[in-house]
Amino acid sequence: MGSVRECGEWLSNYLAQGGFRASLHETEGHPIVLAFGPVREGRPTVLIYGHYDVQPEVPVSEWDTPPFEPVVREGRIHARGATDNKGQIFAHVCGAVEALREDGDLPVNLIFLVEGEEEIGSGNLEPFLMRHREALRCDVIAVSDTGMVAEGVPTLTCGLRGIAAMEVRLRGPKVDLHSGIYGGAVRNPITALSRLLATLHDADGRVAVSGFYDGVLEVPEGLRGAWGRLPLNERVLLEVTGAPSLEGEAGYSALERVWARPTAEINGIGGGFQGAGSKTVIPREAFAKLTFRLVPGQDPGRVLQLVREHLERNVEAGVELEVEMGHTGMPYLVDADGRYARAAVHALGETFAGREVAVIREGGSIPIITSFKNVLGVDTLLLGLALPDCNAHAPNETFPVANFEAGIRLNRALLRALAHA
Amino acid sequence: MGSVRECGEWLSNYLAQGGFRASLHETEGHPIVLAFGPVREGRPTVLIYGHYDVQPEVPVSEWDTPPFEPVVREGRIHARGATDNKGQIFAHVCGAVEALREDGDLPVNLIFLVEGEEEIGSGNLEPFLMRHREALRCDVIAVSDTGMVAEGVPTLTCGLRGIAAMEVRLRGPKVDLHSGIYGGAVRNPITALSRLLATLHDADGRVAVSGFYDGVLEVPEGLRGAWGRLPLNERVLLEVTGAPSLEGEAGYSALERVWARPTAEINGIGGGFQGAGSKTVIPREAFAKLTFRLVPGQDPGRVLQLVREHLERNVEAGVELEVEMGHTGMPYLVDADGRYARAAVHALGETFAGREVAVIREGGSIPIITSFKNVLGVDTLLLGLALPDCNAHAPNETFPVANFEAGIRLNRALLRALAHA
Repeated sequence: MGSVRECGEWLSNYLAQGGFRASLHETEGHPIVLAFGPVREGRPTVLIYGHYDVQPEVPVSEWDTPPFEPVVREGRIHARGATDNKGQIFAHVCGAVEALREDGDLPVNLIFLVEGEEEIGSGNLEPFLMRHREALRCDVIAVSDTGMVAEGVPTLTCGLRGIAAMEVRLRGPKVDLHSGIYGGAVRNPITALSRLLATLHDADGRVAVSGFYDGVLEVPEGLRGAWGRLPLNERVLLEVTGAPSLEGEAGYSALERVWARPTAEINGIGGGFQGAGSKTVIPREAFAKLTFRLVPGQDPGRVLQLVREHLERNVEAGVELEVEMGHTGMPYLVDADGRYARAAVHALGETFAGREVAVIREGGSIPIITSFKNVLGVDTLLLGLALPDCNAHAPNETFPVANFEAGIRLNRALLRALAHA
Repeated sequence: MGSVRECGEWLSNYLAQGGFRASLHETEGHPIVLAFGPVREGRPTVLIYGHYDVQPEVPVSEWDTPPFEPVVREGRIHARGATDNKGQIFAHVCGAVEALREDGDLPVNLIFLVEGEEEIGSGNLEPFLMRHREALRCDVIAVSDTGMVAEGVPTLTCGLRGIAAMEVRLRGPKVDLHSGIYGGAVRNPITALSRLLATLHDADGRVAVSGFYDGVLEVPEGLRGAWGRLPLNERVLLEVTGAPSLEGEAGYSALERVWARPTAEINGIGGGFQGAGSKTVIPREAFAKLTFRLVPGQDPGRVLQLVREHLERNVEAGVELEVEMGHTGMPYLVDADGRYARAAVHALGETFAGREVAVIREGGSIPIITSFKNVLGVDTLLLGLALPDCNAHAPNETFPVANFEAGIRLNRALLRALAHA
């Protein structure tokens, strides 16, 4: 099985033997590997982040070969972590070690920060960043832990959505009531909840909460056009999701909807009798779990407040509304025209034989990116090398050898480009 | 604890010793007690129905005295079944046995039909009715297993609501999706379900299904007026339900809403993540369990069909609708001006010292009443003697001695009145 800690130790030793000043830093969980290349004044400092922990390998029975005995088959490395994130971070390490051996130096001051708890929430990373703020001072951060839109298409992710969570509960009668004896005379909390949740969107699929879109940055026309030409089109989305059709906010493509438009989603709902058959109750309460995906220009705290006010305005008499605010995460946006982003695009193009680089966003949130911004005050370049069919988090995870080799080239190209950005 | 069967045997023997031709009829479950009084041609035959089985006594620890050792305390019989239904049916038996002993005859041909499976759904009763259709031929049925609107207020229940059940499921993506990665591009089944369920009612609390109210019999003005003067008012309903306020269909009182107006209730809803905290999924499906309480003039099968068509018309694109039809039960109405009902009102008034009789309906359904109508073709008079605070189905069930004695008087008055109806 291999212990997580042993992997961190191995990596630290590898970097040390490769010429880095490497060390293992204890945390309350798995240790963090920190390694510094040669430092020279007057050149930028680049921090490359990754993680050496992996998702659990269960169920092992579904793997074609043992998950912790990597093999190359049909041009792909098969192993747990091949893509997420051992393969990708090791490609960067190999590129840097190779460059250092060949040139005796690197184009930038390079820091590797590789943690062992990304798959369980990176709980010890932000405290570590705060304790080592000085040592980790840098100009830009690079991470290869996201995806490419399709095989062979170099991809820079320059935006992520934020999130704001909320739980809504409506309480009606003091106990579950018999719907024959009392049905018609009291408000049914499930009915009231359905009607309340139905007010969250208008007929065009827009979020109908007053003020919700205030400040939302529209996607530049050029970017919209480029996204329309990506191989990740609506046919692919339909196939991946298996939804009967794609639906969403009027006036935007599916990619725009998931990458650059905010949403209101009901992630869970419950109330009354859920077993087999029928039980004729008017339940005492019903609840729903909401999350809002937010885009640059929106503030999660303000959105939660607006939604609370919307719910208070729209809840019907006969039930009591209870709102519990949940976690929040800021949306993230790197200026694709900034010097580091342009350098990254250049490096990606060079790495993939001049193919046009897809400059995209992703719909999810990556909390560590916000930590980097908050604690270290710098932007993060997301240069993912994963393909949609690499089975990250699933049995039979793979990573194309071509992508691993591209990662090595990418590291060298990226450091050169950033040195001159 | 006392076995259920023993109770049936005891009752059969008691009736036999009291002059009835009594017998115990085996079923696949508990036996049915059937007893015939003296038969004379030219007078009506009255069937009195009741049940000798009771609800489970658990939790015994919450009883002040052992549930199967009846005691009289503060004017009330304390025992499991005191109200539901041993006390009430036994009052009828006592009244009839007493009359037979004193007069050597009864005013009518009387049949007692007392089953042992009412609390578990009366599964063997309808087959029994069908097998014994000839022996059970009668002119009217009387049952004391419903409630009085308040202490000392004699009550005739002349209507019950019917029911139609349905389960609705919306299926979206083929698997639960990450709401960050895909949120905005596919229809969320919970959102679609909320919006669909919100179409069931209009802003006035009326069911918004086209054709739903077709044929609904309005309550006669005189009855509405009488209901408005009952001690079972909105203050009492608020207290019993503990709801923040009473709400319902505009233009009707709370009692009219539960007794004489149809409803659409959502008895259960579920979908997505329901655990503690947050999980950002777009679930593959969501479901709701619906029942419609129906009133005289409505047909449950037609209502289910109308609702299905309504759902099909209103479901949004991007999800697939699945409707599963559930059980149905016909609404029930006895003409309060019919001769047997008038005789029952007369007997109730006589029994309760001339107090005005409340002629009401109940919002629930009593399936056996429909069986009586379907198989034997006769109406049922519901002359309940239970009070709201008798704790039927709960620990510390009681029955006022005064109501038990009233039941004995009621039986004699009722048989006399029906004899001359």
